[in-house]
Amino acid sequence: MSQRVKIGKLAVLLTTLEEEELAPFEKQLEDVDFCLGRAGSMNMQKVISAVETAAKRQQIISEIVYRETHSLYHAILEALEGVTRGQIAIGDMMRTVGLKFAVVRGKPYDRDGEGEWIAVAFYGTIGAPVKGLEHETMGLGINHI
Amino acid sequence: MSQRVKIGKLAVLLTTLEEEELAPFEKQLEDVDFCLGRAGSMNMQKVISAVETAAKRQQIISEIVYRETHSLYHAILEALEGVTRGQIAIGDMMRTVGLKFAVVRGKPYDRDGEGEWIAVAFYGTIGAPVKGLEHETMGLGINHI
Amino acid sequence: MSQRVKIGKLAVLLTTLEEEELAPFEKQLEDVDFCLGRAGSMNMQKVISAVETAAKRQQIISEIVYRETHSLYHAILEALEGVTRGQIAIGDMMRTVGLKFAVVRGKPYDRDGEGEWIAVAFYGTIGAPVKGLEHETMGLGINHI
Amino acid sequence: MSQRVKIGKLAVLLTTLEEEELAPFEKQLEDVDFCLGRAGSMNMQKVISAVETAAKRQQIISEIVYRETHSLYHAILEALEGVTRGQIAIGDMMRTVGLKFAVVRGKPYDRDGEGEWIAVAFYGTIGAPVKGLEHETMGLGINHI
Amino acid sequence: MSQRVKIGKLAVLLTTLEEEELAPFEKQLEDVDFCLGRAGSMNMQKVISAVETAAKRQQIISEIVYRETHSLYHAILEALEGVTRGQIAIGDMMRTVGLKFAVVRGKPYDRDGEGEWIAVAFYGTIGAPVKGLEHETMGLGINHI
Amino acid sequence: MSQRVKIGKLAVLLTTLEEEELAPFEKQLEDVDFCLGRAGSMNMQKVISAVETAAKRQQIISEIVYRETHSLYHAILEALEGVTRGQIAIGDMMRTVGLKFAVVRGKPYDRDGEGEWIAVAFYGTIGAPVKGLEHETMGLGINHI
Repeated sequence: MSQRVKIGKLAVLLTTLEEEELAPFEKQLEDVDFCLGRAGSMNMQKVISAVETAAKRQQIISEIVYRETHSLYHAILEALEGVTRGQIAIGDMMRTVGLKFAVVRGKPYDRDGEGEWIAVAFYGTIGAPVKGLEHETMGLGINHI
Repeated sequence: MSQRVKIGKLAVLLTTLEEEELAPFEKQLEDVDFCLGRAGSMNMQKVISAVETAAKRQQIISEIVYRETHSLYHAILEALEGVTRGQIAIGDMMRTVGLKFAVVRGKPYDRDGEGEWIAVAFYGTIGAPVKGLEHETMGLGINHI
Repeated sequence: MSQRVKIGKLAVLLTTLEEEELAPFEKQLEDVDFCLGRAGSMNMQKVISAVETAAKRQQIISEIVYRETHSLYHAILEALEGVTRGQIAIGDMMRTVGLKFAVVRGKPYDRDGEGEWIAVAFYGTIGAPVKGLEHETMGLGINHI
Repeated sequence: MSQRVKIGKLAVLLTTLEEEELAPFEKQLEDVDFCLGRAGSMNMQKVISAVETAAKRQQIISEIVYRETHSLYHAILEALEGVTRGQIAIGDMMRTVGLKFAVVRGKPYDRDGEGEWIAVAFYGTIGAPVKGLEHETMGLGINHI
Repeated sequence: MSQRVKIGKLAVLLTTLEEEELAPFEKQLEDVDFCLGRAGSMNMQKVISAVETAAKRQQIISEIVYRETHSLYHAILEALEGVTRGQIAIGDMMRTVGLKFAVVRGKPYDRDGEGEWIAVAFYGTIGAPVKGLEHETMGLGINHI
Repeated sequence: MSQRVKIGKLAVLLTTLEEEELAPFEKQLEDVDFCLGRAGSMNMQKVISAVETAAKRQQIISEIVYRETHSLYHAILEALEGVTRGQIAIGDMMRTVGLKFAVVRGKPYDRDGEGEWIAVAFYGTIGAPVKGLEHETMGLGINHI
């Protein structure tokens, strides 16, 4: 892949790696804007809301331009499809998620007309609402912004 | 997460990181069995088949025990839900994928009764069947074996 | 299309056109029974309920014959698939809809054995629960009754 | 099908047949562990919870081994796909279900390496939350345990 | 359930029971029209086609009335959702099905206005295209006709 | 809805109305770029391809900027969800579609930062591959570009 900046890969690493493991990637992270957060819930609405709030508060997207909200929202939904594996309503199905999330904004393509894109990644656990009865899960969504 | 071995995280790193970037994780990889491969196609059947063939040939799962095939198959499907974001038939929708995949088998839990689990990760690109008209995608599926 | 009465097209026009724009179609509307209404909610249950209530109160379908309720219900669900584009649970996903709906009942086919059919159309907006952060959406469902 | 014990068929018969109709199958039922129950709700969470509770209380699965909970959970979800026909969120869509359920655990295969599998069946009605405005529905899910 | 004739239950029994096991239900079967068949394929189109052809040839539905074809088609799709558990495209996903099917037409309700309904049931196996690497599966779809 | 230009409504009217019925909307159409076409097929790939080709050939989107292709592709997929009502693979399910399509590009919002958006609409028939065994269907997808 000849992409200049891999915003998806960076979002994935930001959620899966421990802080010390991230050190080798710090230089690549200088080329993008990003924010990090956590969301733990049985309710997908709260997860979506946590990401939207973090991305706006940390100015990864503009709060007043709808097309940026629209782009982020669809990237979140796509990432949640990975987390819930096709059953986005699964959070309402007696399962709970404990997720770390990252939103990364950058210019992945050399051609200037391609402009900015956004990546949303989740990594954490999904399972019964009982400590230990859970397994890993992750998801990645990407959209033009 | 108190899991002893994070088979999902390792599968994700095996597909997203370059060989030299993987060096810090080599010790963790000693605790699991894994195989790697590539699949590029407009057709999800060929992707599924490539993973099943690699996992059997490299003896990550047994070829003659159906429950292992069944477990791997569902882990692949779940990972593809992430890749296609809820549209597993998308490969048939004028898009093409170029994916690196990893199958990781190990014991993620301390309790011995939990036994072995399997993780399947994909990372690569999805897009129009034209070089450059594509973006990153990934998926992770996990199952007990 | 050789259909005598296009109940789907009429349902679509009833929801998308302003009253004065509908004038040229008044003659076609004489061949069908129809009702109109509005539903605005973050909750798909309320939308379904609003359509069922309107269709029964205005006697487009019979309240006591289950097969008519069954037929209408599936036409509503199909129309909502268009509104939510495959994610019927999306109303529960931090989005809100403001919809105009129409239920049209008529005989679209020349062959008499085909009897009556029902069309449900929605048109309006879907978006963040903030004025202006929304775009147009629509859906059409058709069933035999 | 050369399976020694058809756990799926037995689960289906346990939910569809009246007690006196089940008599001819009593001998086959000696080869498996099973439990029965009922769940009536507009809410899929309650249905899932009813099956999990029954299966644990009657010791069809172990309460403390996550892989058994994981296996049962996915078998329940698969059976609910049949009940809701691809719209697992349908219970939240102004419909109510009245279901009999069965969980059957046994060894369907001759090869010993295949070990134990679990089947979950539902049979009952789905419809408007009004007596009589409903039709039959069923679902079957099967998983290795 | 106060239904006079349980067309869904009869369709399920016709596909799951052996001929000798069906004897106790012969009297109930006199109240309905039904046909039976088999379909084995990796391709869902062939399964749909086999059921449509059988139901028309054995005059369970009329070949020339579209509303009957429409009703049967949706009942088949709903039953296949149970077979494939939400992934109707799964037949194209390196899996093969070997299914027995039944189409049952009758009057399940006491109220005469409810008229005739149709039930489609499938029972058989789904799995890898290798003998023995498969498990049971079933599905039931019901529609007014 | 306070949108300046309703690109979704215009796309819907372009596909549902006859040429003479479109006359009253000609002035509104001056504010947008659009193209029209037809696609008839049992195969969704061909439908997607027909829309992409028309939109590029008539310069509604740029052939060499990936973000425009990406935006159009997702708008097409969303519109097809409406056409197939949640079963995008349905075209492969023994059904055939005969569709008129419109792609409309414009600036729906007053705020200048919102820029251009794209709407894709389909209207036509879906049914058995036999003349007359079909009913109306439509879909609308909207995306920022």
